[in-house]
Amino acid sequence: MASQGKKLINHPSGVVTEYIEGLVEAYPGLQFLDGFPQIKVVLQANISPSTFDKVAVISGGGAGHEPAHAGYVGPGMLTAAVSGDVFASPPVDSILAAIRAVTGPKGCVLIVTNYTGDRLNFGLAVEQAKSEGYSIEMVIVGDDCALPPRRGIVGRRGLAGTVLVNKVAGATAAAGLSLTEVAAAAKHAAKLVGTMGVALSVCTLPGQPTSDRLGTEKMELGLGIHGEPGAAVVDIQPVDLVVSCVLNQILSAETGYVPITRGSNVVLMINGLGGTPLMELMIAARKAIRELQGIHGFVVDRVYTGSFMTSLDMAGFSITLMKSEPAILECLDSPTKAPCWPVGTEASIGGRPPVKVPLPLIPSSSSRNSEIVSRPQELTKFGCILEAAIEAAAKEIVNMKDCSKEWETKLGDGDYSTTMKRGAAAIIEDMKLWNYPLNDTAETLNEMSTTIRRVMGGTSGILYAILCKAAYTSLKGHSQPTAREWANALAASIDAVSKYSGARAGDCTMLDALIPASNTLNERLDAGDNPVTAFVASAEAAMIGAESTKFLQAQAGRSAFTSPDLLVSVPDPGAMAAALWYRAAAFSVASKFKP
Amino acid sequence: MASQGKKLINHPSGVVTEYIEGLVEAYPGLQFLDGFPQIKVVLQANISPSTFDKVAVISGGGAGHEPAHAGYVGPGMLTAAVSGDVFASPPVDSILAAIRAVTGPKGCVLIVTNYTGDRLNFGLAVEQAKSEGYSIEMVIVGDDCALPPRRGIVGRRGLAGTVLVNKVAGATAAAGLSLTEVAAAAKHAAKLVGTMGVALSVCTLPGQPTSDRLGTEKMELGLGIHGEPGAAVVDIQPVDLVVSCVLNQILSAETGYVPITRGSNVVLMINGLGGTPLMELMIAARKAIRELQGIHGFVVDRVYTGSFMTSLDMAGFSITLMKSEPAILECLDSPTKAPCWPVGTEASIGGRPPVKVPLPLIPSSSSRNSEIVSRPQELTKFGCILEAAIEAAAKEIVNMKDCSKEWETKLGDGDYSTTMKRGAAAIIEDMKLWNYPLNDTAETLNEMSTTIRRVMGGTSGILYAILCKAAYTSLKGHSQPTAREWANALAASIDAVSKYSGARAGDCTMLDALIPASNTLNERLDAGDNPVTAFVASAEAAMIGAESTKFLQAQAGRSAFTSPDLLVSVPDPGAMAAALWYRAAAFSVASKFKP
Repeated sequence: MASQGKKLINHPSGVVTEYIEGLVEAYPGLQFLDGFPQIKVVLQANISPSTFDKVAVISGGGAGHEPAHAGYVGPGMLTAAVSGDVFASPPVDSILAAIRAVTGPKGCVLIVTNYTGDRLNFGLAVEQAKSEGYSIEMVIVGDDCALPPRRGIVGRRGLAGTVLVNKVAGATAAAGLSLTEVAAAAKHAAKLVGTMGVALSVCTLPGQPTSDRLGTEKMELGLGIHGEPGAAVVDIQPVDLVVSCVLNQILSAETGYVPITRGSNVVLMINGLGGTPLMELMIAARKAIRELQGIHGFVVDRVYTGSFMTSLDMAGFSITLMKSEPAILECLDSPTKAPCWPVGTEASIGGRPPVKVPLPLIPSSSSRNSEIVSRPQELTKFGCILEAAIEAAAKEIVNMKDCSKEWETKLGDGDYSTTMKRGAAAIIEDMKLWNYPLNDTAETLNEMSTTIRRVMGGTSGILYAILCKAAYTSLKGHSQPTAREWANALAASIDAVSKYSGARAGDCTMLDALIPASNTLNERLDAGDNPVTAFVASAEAAMIGAESTKFLQAQAGRSAFTSPDLLVSVPDPGAMAAALWYRAAAFSVASKFKP
Repeated sequence: MASQGKKLINHPSGVVTEYIEGLVEAYPGLQFLDGFPQIKVVLQANISPSTFDKVAVISGGGAGHEPAHAGYVGPGMLTAAVSGDVFASPPVDSILAAIRAVTGPKGCVLIVTNYTGDRLNFGLAVEQAKSEGYSIEMVIVGDDCALPPRRGIVGRRGLAGTVLVNKVAGATAAAGLSLTEVAAAAKHAAKLVGTMGVALSVCTLPGQPTSDRLGTEKMELGLGIHGEPGAAVVDIQPVDLVVSCVLNQILSAETGYVPITRGSNVVLMINGLGGTPLMELMIAARKAIRELQGIHGFVVDRVYTGSFMTSLDMAGFSITLMKSEPAILECLDSPTKAPCWPVGTEASIGGRPPVKVPLPLIPSSSSRNSEIVSRPQELTKFGCILEAAIEAAAKEIVNMKDCSKEWETKLGDGDYSTTMKRGAAAIIEDMKLWNYPLNDTAETLNEMSTTIRRVMGGTSGILYAILCKAAYTSLKGHSQPTAREWANALAASIDAVSKYSGARAGDCTMLDALIPASNTLNERLDAGDNPVTAFVASAEAAMIGAESTKFLQAQAGRSAFTSPDLLVSVPDPGAMAAALWYRAAAFSVASKFKP
């Protein structure tokens, strides 16, 4: 939410004009009438009244309710929209200009929200246009259900239900119906619709200070869309309660505002008032749908959730219910190119599928096969070497703890060695509990990945899990990999870590140990060295690489946010740890092959 | 904007779960995976991985960015979306569940925003899925242009450009392309896109107090979508300046973030960050379109304006530019049923029509014909009677002023008589200036309507203009109406005023004089009375009707908001004025026919 009176605008007096210019420039299907900005009329591009063979549908009113109504101009919905200034009815001449610009031989329906200014200005324009020979019908929408009946004849305000009436009228007109039919459809739609709003904040007019009428703990029920006070101010309630209360008010048998009774089909609109994020609207939609189906016994045919008729930046929403009839649904579903009419509520003919689908089974190839994933009765020579190497590497990390404390304190990352030690200890434990199928190198690496994911957590945990998983995928099917296969697996692991972490050589991460190791390993193997010698040589390269990080500035990983001064004397702990376990593994393997 | 920390939710811990439930219940084309709410995966309904013959496209990340990404699930866009908690990456198991639920023989592309947590969790899920035999490609989107290059390899954050990449990937997959091709298209799209955000407020996490980091006069440039600080905090500027600055930053030749150069075609996205009304977004779109075309020399192919990738309730927007290529446009334009992908930016093949269209000419039948609309050289007898009646009625109103002052003071409507007097005086003046074609009654009433509209203003002005205009339409073509035609015209006028004002008999308006007059006039004519006698009788009925309003409570008009106690002794000024001018006209006509 913005602070007091803050808006991303230029000058308060220009907001409506600039909004319309933006809308029309963004949508090539729209134009505005000359005479702009005094006359604020947006119309479908390329309409020629003399040849227009449909009933024109025009809506309009004060600005501040965007996208209503100019955002609903397009084939299948409005032919034109007339806008006044913020919260001010458009003048008669603007309305007349709109009528003259789009009304053809089939006539025009004007859809007007029930405010005195709108009724009178549109009314005079209608009378003028009639006297000029136009066939015109005016339909007034007063869908507010917040106030009791007959609180003055001006009582029921026009709210978001107007947008649904606009769509019904537009679809009927697009279908080629006559003026009488389109007007009748719109009037009928207006009788089927009821709306009530709630808000956490009052809207702020451009250039004005923010009202603190509602303070930090109140909300308002039944308010209008011009910042005028609502029916009641109450303490903020959970939105589920608010939705129940609003639905009961709309459906009140006492007022009888909407002809919706148990067993009815309904259309639901959750309308954001300008400053309300979709998350909150959808949470309200969830409750409304459940309440309408479960408590009121309705069938919910369509749900529209979004900001359709706003009140500047007001935080809040209105709920609109419309009795759903087949003809109404057909109109709501019929296609339109109006930029702001929502899509996506596709027909659910024959009912919707269940909201929940079963979790897929884990593919059998990866499910734990207890024969594979357990320690073999007897280890092969290869299995023994693998076990010793893993144990040596893991123990090195467990013992590393103390010597790396110094780094961590300086680097402000107090739990890095704790996390690493926890992973290493768990690997030793899982291996001892006979869970690792040590005669199969690839599957053992896969199990190590699982161990790491289970216990380590944090960035290091995921990176090491990725390292092992990528090595597993590379070695899969090779129970006793060759040195070259090992080298390829190391390279694949480095690629995966680099890809997902974004880190490269020189970024002060574990890769500053592993990349030199990988390079040296490949070079030595290429040169025909003994694999064990090559492994040990690559371990030395890893250590040199790790030590060299003390001269680099961290680009990623845990050192990235630390002062450069501090780093000159300390190697990166991630690189150092990788060098340590790698070297321990190499020495362990080498010791097995000692003459 | 909402006050501090106010949200329309139930409990802070439930917002993501309840949002997803609402979304899925509102859109029958969506389902969520079992395991919900621990596993937050929304997928296209009725996808069966074993038979799914397209490349699956999955996106996801932390929640708080609605409608991203679950709102983009649907045929033609995402196959599934994975959500974490607010601003927290989804866990590996959720991502894996999504992959397994939708990935068929053609494989899966994962589109991931460039945050360490997302990269690593999605990365491990990819490695796991690969090891299970799935064909997977991961595409990382880092479209942020706010920060300088290489401020760490984690540098360029994923922002709203991700939504465009999702669309390109989804459209490519829907077209039946291979995994390699879909991934290549998505990677290519990611390279074409750049984004930068600005905000007036920091987002408020559910259950947390609102940050006042920006106070009431600051805005932030180049911020991310998790409330993290941006590149700079500056004083609030006019939005046109902000837009220019952001575009320059995105297009900076120094960073070279997007491959857009003079002459390029571009796609523009103005993305609301959650609490920004469409009015403000469209004002920014206006400036951006003009600047891109006018200053930068680009062709703007498409504009998307709305809230596509938000940061909870943050007030602000981001601007995304994408280099537009024919293949990209085809993907953006291709149909989708994803609920939140915007529509309306229809193709403008061959360029758009001009934004402005000429005002329509006033139909010739109503244009001022100087022959008709001027005082005839010689008045007929009928014209003389009409002139006298109008003059008498208008003078009565001019003289009414003093005696109605008492009412107005009590009723707190100090300018009612001033307005009425201004209209009456203008009628006398216009008539004397020979402007009224007095030999034609209908046209004279039309001119009176014009006079009233020009000078009176306010509700009374419009109502009297409507009254005269409706009478004109009724009498049109009857230059010397019969008494019955006059009676019909009065009835038509009353109907129009009643229709547009909503007022009926007994509502304390001018109609409480005119309705009894109309009724009496018709009754007397029906009874065969002399028309003049009938007119005078109807004037007496008007006066009795007006006087009776002192016993009614106002329902409309100027007395509607006044205390009932006050009204008992005072008739409604609107009713009284109508009775006065009506009676004056009747007496004037009667005097002409005196024996």
